[in-house]
Amino acid sequence: MTDHATTIDLNVDLGEGFGRWSIADDAALLDLVSSANVACGFHAGDPSIMRRTCGAAAERGVRIGAHVAYRDLAGFGRRFVDAGYAELRDDVLYQVGALDAFARVAGTQVSYVKPHGALYNTIVHHEEQARAVVDAVAEAGLALVGLPGSAVLALAVAAGVPTVPEAFGDRGYRADGTLVPRREPGALVTDPAEVASRVRRLAREHTVLAVDGTVVSSPARSVCLHSDSPGALATVAAARAALDAAGVAVLPAV
Amino acid sequence: MTDHATTIDLNVDLGEGFGRWSIADDAALLDLVSSANVACGFHAGDPSIMRRTCGAAAERGVRIGAHVAYRDLAGFGRRFVDAGYAELRDDVLYQVGALDAFARVAGTQVSYVKPHGALYNTIVHHEEQARAVVDAVAEAGLALVGLPGSAVLALAVAAGVPTVPEAFGDRGYRADGTLVPRREPGALVTDPAEVASRVRRLAREHTVLAVDGTVVSSPARSVCLHSDSPGALATVAAARAALDAAGVAVLPAV
Amino acid sequence: MTDHATTIDLNVDLGEGFGRWSIADDAALLDLVSSANVACGFHAGDPSIMRRTCGAAAERGVRIGAHVAYRDLAGFGRRFVDAGYAELRDDVLYQVGALDAFARVAGTQVSYVKPHGALYNTIVHHEEQARAVVDAVAEAGLALVGLPGSAVLALAVAAGVPTVPEAFGDRGYRADGTLVPRREPGALVTDPAEVASRVRRLAREHTVLAVDGTVVSSPARSVCLHSDSPGALATVAAARAALDAAGVAVLPAV
Amino acid sequence: MTDHATTIDLNVDLGEGFGRWSIADDAALLDLVSSANVACGFHAGDPSIMRRTCGAAAERGVRIGAHVAYRDLAGFGRRFVDAGYAELRDDVLYQVGALDAFARVAGTQVSYVKPHGALYNTIVHHEEQARAVVDAVAEAGLALVGLPGSAVLALAVAAGVPTVPEAFGDRGYRADGTLVPRREPGALVTDPAEVASRVRRLAREHTVLAVDGTVVSSPARSVCLHSDSPGALATVAAARAALDAAGVAVLPAV
Repeated sequence: MTDHATTIDLNVDLGEGFGRWSIADDAALLDLVSSANVACGFHAGDPSIMRRTCGAAAERGVRIGAHVAYRDLAGFGRRFVDAGYAELRDDVLYQVGALDAFARVAGTQVSYVKPHGALYNTIVHHEEQARAVVDAVAEAGLALVGLPGSAVLALAVAAGVPTVPEAFGDRGYRADGTLVPRREPGALVTDPAEVASRVRRLAREHTVLAVDGTVVSSPARSVCLHSDSPGALATVAAARAALDAAGVAVLPAV
Repeated sequence: MTDHATTIDLNVDLGEGFGRWSIADDAALLDLVSSANVACGFHAGDPSIMRRTCGAAAERGVRIGAHVAYRDLAGFGRRFVDAGYAELRDDVLYQVGALDAFARVAGTQVSYVKPHGALYNTIVHHEEQARAVVDAVAEAGLALVGLPGSAVLALAVAAGVPTVPEAFGDRGYRADGTLVPRREPGALVTDPAEVASRVRRLAREHTVLAVDGTVVSSPARSVCLHSDSPGALATVAAARAALDAAGVAVLPAV
Repeated sequence: MTDHATTIDLNVDLGEGFGRWSIADDAALLDLVSSANVACGFHAGDPSIMRRTCGAAAERGVRIGAHVAYRDLAGFGRRFVDAGYAELRDDVLYQVGALDAFARVAGTQVSYVKPHGALYNTIVHHEEQARAVVDAVAEAGLALVGLPGSAVLALAVAAGVPTVPEAFGDRGYRADGTLVPRREPGALVTDPAEVASRVRRLAREHTVLAVDGTVVSSPARSVCLHSDSPGALATVAAARAALDAAGVAVLPAV
Repeated sequence: MTDHATTIDLNVDLGEGFGRWSIADDAALLDLVSSANVACGFHAGDPSIMRRTCGAAAERGVRIGAHVAYRDLAGFGRRFVDAGYAELRDDVLYQVGALDAFARVAGTQVSYVKPHGALYNTIVHHEEQARAVVDAVAEAGLALVGLPGSAVLALAVAAGVPTVPEAFGDRGYRADGTLVPRREPGALVTDPAEVASRVRRLAREHTVLAVDGTVVSSPARSVCLHSDSPGALATVAAARAALDAAGVAVLPAV
């Protein structure tokens, strides 16, 4: 029986080096996931890294997403920038177009957009910046990955842009379904076995266990795992193994 | 009689501002030419300028070319950068892809690549960088505008990349068909009437008058006029009027 | 009689080009003012422009201020960036140090810091960023120019940093002494004669006429005039002539 | 007996991260050397890294040098950029000034300039760029570290700029005293014990053993060890231990 419950998309951030610098073990991670959020040069990523990452993803049948960000290399896209509607929309489209050139050379194309860092968090509530992102994604004819309940996903749905709600496999949740802020206890789940268990639960039962023990329902069709912590590879491997063992197919959501 | 002699492409550099800064009167120039070399963010141009320029070009049926450059905003792409093959190829493809996203939103697409500044001059003779540019243009499936007799055009022909040899309507030529270096007398032709006369001669007779009076034959199918000098608009207007008066149709070469 | 009332500092923003691009007629403005806010490379300004501007200022005895900004060339420093305390403090000190090297080559030194654009506006109320700026200014042993009543001036006073409250000669004021927001009528005063009259009033009477006619008292010891509008030079010249005619000496505040 | 022969300066490159990215174990290296070449933001290094590195160096009495580079973050300063005299001179002075601000906050000051990467190699022979560097160093009143026999050291001597000739402890030499090019066998010495032996020989005997066995005399007063290879820390530690055991004092050259 291959019902909806038995598939899930796994997405990770990749290609987050720049010039001389690098971060994650991208190739090893690509063997474990179904979607790669590829940095496009604004918070990280340079053209040669983008080419390599797209090539490695395409070889493995991993979907390529444009991990678009504020223009902020020094801040790694983790700082809010009060960009206006037009400049943000255009910055997003620029990044998508640049990445798509490399995806096409690799024989595929960009499938979706996932905003990075501060932009991701901002468009949960910032209507003008959310509209800028949605309009760029609509122009590019792509799908949008984002947080369930966010302003940006609501606007995307209204605009007819395909959406992929996602959950975080290694972040703590509160009983109301929102994330535990990073500065509070329980914000991060670091034990690979516990992360694996949470990812399996998300895929099989569409729920997440909140910090107070509440079982919270989740509409996520993709699960994000962080790639830039020291134990990231082990955690992603554990999550993937748990899904395989539970008969859950790891497949792209778009 | 509408033979080959009665059409010519006119190309200018556009969109060469960045953020707060701008240079040319882009809209007025677009009314006069058939091809726009649009800066892609590496030597000039930001995403919002790229969108506006692509939109204005598309409205007028002006072809859009990617004016690719070294990554050198501070030097406006006018300084040689000893980039290796792979990084240069990837930098070129990145710029083309980014611009193409805006061209497509404007209902058209990038038609050709024209390298800018120091890159343009370098690949006249630098084989490795010329290969990098040609390979990126081939990957993008575009045509290449360049100097007749250059290494890059020869490599493009060998690679099956469509080429457009161009001449400079406002630069002096030597009897051997090369440009008078910028630091020598006669390097620049600034009188609009004289430029107009030279452009008409290029289009009708496929020749250029060298500084010593020699009549030099030119294979150019496109004529470039500079857009960033104070009198640029008047010069381009004079050239266009001369072509119109001579019954030469100004049409894209690709 | 040379009392306090008969001197005022005039400051303008200068050196706001970058590479190929430029804005104001810097040399002409320097003949009219007593303080130059020189861009330091983060929102505008490159090292060669900084050298030229410092040299031209020093020749005329004009004080040099570091016009520090968020790291945002694409946004010209006009967008809020949610920089943390340490990175902002360090970004400010970096800019001050870089500019000071050129001031010293010109035989003088940086005398004060004036934040630019969005940073200027943010630290009117943003305590953490205000502290970051004050701490950098204290480390550099300089004075700080800012808005009377702002958080940043209060923190500077508390930290023992010399302060220079300033007024804007070409901005409208409300009866409570705050600026008319830029999107409201009366935000900008563009008539040179009216600006001249306001500057003279600020210098002689320490007051400004609000949009509703109220006479508002001002503690400003420096008056800022904008340098990047088309008529800027004429306006600054008119203000300077009015001060000269009224017997007000235009002298640095620090 | 504490003669000149019994002291040597050890210098390493530090602070070569940027924003989210980092490279070397800077603190551990600082315990072993007498001079730190600190990146200034053009090829690597951001203001907060510069502050931390200056602070850590100052605490240990390690001299701070400005590791100036071409403006090329994407290329890590390893690509030749054909910068003109004035822009290069000004780029160098800008970097020195910025770093000096952090050195002064740490209670010390920049002591010398050492060009990085492609700039270092270029000014071995490129007279115009060498002059640009020398003139900036002279304006800053600092010393210059460079390759014996290079154009830049000759120009520095002629200009009265103090110079520190250096040798590379982990690079192979040819019988004529020049370095074995990186693409040839013997270019790099990776065995910590062998590097240690070479460094001790440089300090005690002022000689280096060329790849063909020739004993080559060296005027080096400083020895550079690379900091960005995986085994860098072990190699530097071995060299330092060998110097300590041989009674050679590791002391700054300026």
